[in-house]
Amino acid sequence: MRRVAIIGVGMSKFGEVWERGFRELVAEAGLRAIEDAKVQGEEIDALFGGTMAAGRLIGQEHIAALIADYMGINPTAATRVEDACASGGVALRTGMMAVASGLHDMVVVGGVEKMTDVAVGDATSALGGAGDQEWELFMGATFPSLYAFIAQRHMKDYGTTEEQMAAVAVKNHANASKNKYAQYQNEITIEQVMKSKVIASPLKLFDCSPITDGAAAVVLCPLDKAKKYTDTPIEIIGTGQASDTIALHSRESFTTLKATKIAAKKAYDMAKVGPKDIKVAEVHDCFTIAELLAIEDLGFFKKGEGGKATANGETALNSKISINTSGGLKGCGHPVGATGVKQAVEIAWQLRGDAGARQVSGAEYGLTQNVGGSGATAVVHIYKRAD
Amino acid sequence: MRRVAIIGVGMSKFGEVWERGFRELVAEAGLRAIEDAKVQGEEIDALFGGTMAAGRLIGQEHIAALIADYMGINPTAATRVEDACASGGVALRTGMMAVASGLHDMVVVGGVEKMTDVAVGDATSALGGAGDQEWELFMGATFPSLYAFIAQRHMKDYGTTEEQMAAVAVKNHANASKNKYAQYQNEITIEQVMKSKVIASPLKLFDCSPITDGAAAVVLCPLDKAKKYTDTPIEIIGTGQASDTIALHSRESFTTLKATKIAAKKAYDMAKVGPKDIKVAEVHDCFTIAELLAIEDLGFFKKGEGGKATANGETALNSKISINTSGGLKGCGHPVGATGVKQAVEIAWQLRGDAGARQVSGAEYGLTQNVGGSGATAVVHIYKRAD
Repeated sequence: MRRVAIIGVGMSKFGEVWERGFRELVAEAGLRAIEDAKVQGEEIDALFGGTMAAGRLIGQEHIAALIADYMGINPTAATRVEDACASGGVALRTGMMAVASGLHDMVVVGGVEKMTDVAVGDATSALGGAGDQEWELFMGATFPSLYAFIAQRHMKDYGTTEEQMAAVAVKNHANASKNKYAQYQNEITIEQVMKSKVIASPLKLFDCSPITDGAAAVVLCPLDKAKKYTDTPIEIIGTGQASDTIALHSRESFTTLKATKIAAKKAYDMAKVGPKDIKVAEVHDCFTIAELLAIEDLGFFKKGEGGKATANGETALNSKISINTSGGLKGCGHPVGATGVKQAVEIAWQLRGDAGARQVSGAEYGLTQNVGGSGATAVVHIYKRAD
Repeated sequence: MRRVAIIGVGMSKFGEVWERGFRELVAEAGLRAIEDAKVQGEEIDALFGGTMAAGRLIGQEHIAALIADYMGINPTAATRVEDACASGGVALRTGMMAVASGLHDMVVVGGVEKMTDVAVGDATSALGGAGDQEWELFMGATFPSLYAFIAQRHMKDYGTTEEQMAAVAVKNHANASKNKYAQYQNEITIEQVMKSKVIASPLKLFDCSPITDGAAAVVLCPLDKAKKYTDTPIEIIGTGQASDTIALHSRESFTTLKATKIAAKKAYDMAKVGPKDIKVAEVHDCFTIAELLAIEDLGFFKKGEGGKATANGETALNSKISINTSGGLKGCGHPVGATGVKQAVEIAWQLRGDAGARQVSGAEYGLTQNVGGSGATAVVHIYKRAD
């Protein structure tokens, strides 16, 4: 298996983007990544695009071919990958396989979602497609309510409090305030989170990631060619992906995402590192409770202790472990298909030393964890600067 | 790069399936393929599922995790691949990369579409997502009308006749009549095609592939392990994929699918064979004109001579080259995401000698060509029996 490195990254400014469409957003991110990698368009021989629900959000499928067209890189092989909110992370893994296999040498992985072209209710309905349509969504569940179940159970089993969950949002907004690409660049307080409108108890508005338009992209090539393009290639040294039941009610546990644990074990084993080696990680905080599950299931904290650790500041920038330095899904925004790729972009910036005011010091390894639905898909990657 | 073989295949009966849903169809095909391969579910370490428009057709995204769940193979890594009508063929290629890379050892590739749960107009609208939503579909184009443009131009430039196109449908129904999995197992005549209702001139109802429910699956593993499971592994010796502009009006030519030509050249070069070596091929006849383009662009016949060759019987079963022995999209049916995988299933049966009444004699190599949209994606595979 050939070793694979990230040699270029780029993203669009996340937010509610009224003046540009899906194709402009993704072309912007893709071209920035290509420019960052200093490669020519004709060198790109494959594109993998992660998008969750373009069919319902913009009436468009076949989006990988569309992206290749608007990036001006036809006849590049172009493939869409979809695993709900893990579409971006799984696209990254698929692009990595393409290079590792030897079938492709220079690959762009893009993630994109244009979510504000439909009414919020329609976006919520489209996002519901990440769960079990027949057994959950059709019965009235929405994603806030599914994660509210998880939060209730975590509170019951481990004594996690609403204030501890609020601390996730406060920390992620603080990080986002240092990120010019973030949707929300304002800090918030525990009190603001606690007083925000209840969406599905115990989750309040500020416990929830927003509806966002945005795109992100990375360029991959074999590690042994990476030094021709950049002084700071970022090698992907571990990857793991796992599935679980599509419906939450079929799971063994509500408070552990089994798919995250299995994916993480594969990634750690491949990378030959453990949770203690990771100093910076982007995890899937679609809701604040999801970040607590993630930092527990990834082995950074013991099960049940994620809330307390967060409230104690152990996941803040340059603390014990810096979690979601980009601002995470909550602060940076969550254009669903883009999120997994944006996580890789952030980790590349961190390991290259390009993260500016939110730079983590002394991180040798980085990790990303991207989740689909209520945990039916999880994908974990581990990165190392390769110079 | 590890060499990759198909060791098991399976499909559901194609047709209008009212009594079963998406998840039952794909689980049926997947389990048949696993049974055919004589592997255990727990041996499967990745699943790639090709589906075009589940979001709009059944309100469900995240379908790879759903499939893994209903096949009972969690926590297998499960990834959806979507490239419009080429979703199945691109899923096959992605699964091949997964095995070739060494990241996975035993992979199920499934293709599925459940199209009859919505009204025909809604299905047509969902299929329109394969084209350029903003510049084609929004302006009133549908896929029959886009392919009608292509047909008109082919008639003008090469003198192709409506009767020659009709001969494609007649030949494919004749093949489908010998296939118990086909949606239409009845033969038709040139006169019936010519008298059928005009959909978008010159295309009539019987020039068009139908709306179909169905699923197909194959099991892949490294060639050097394949003999442990089967006496007749089918090696995938060539693969090629290419993209073109998403909108038909941006193309250099209406009568050649450039993506097919580029994908075919890559596949032929990799397999070290040429068009003359191929005796059996499954090509993308979403409309009869598309089969003519395919057999010309793949190099089986000179540009402009596909219609005459078909009318002369040169593509019939056990003639010069046997095209669409399954019945093709026209006769066997076209559950969009399933089609590319079904093509591989048919070629595996042919090369194994398991095709019964439609068995092609003396074929050493087989080929599949799967197209997305009006040609913005094409993927070509070449197969050889490896015993």
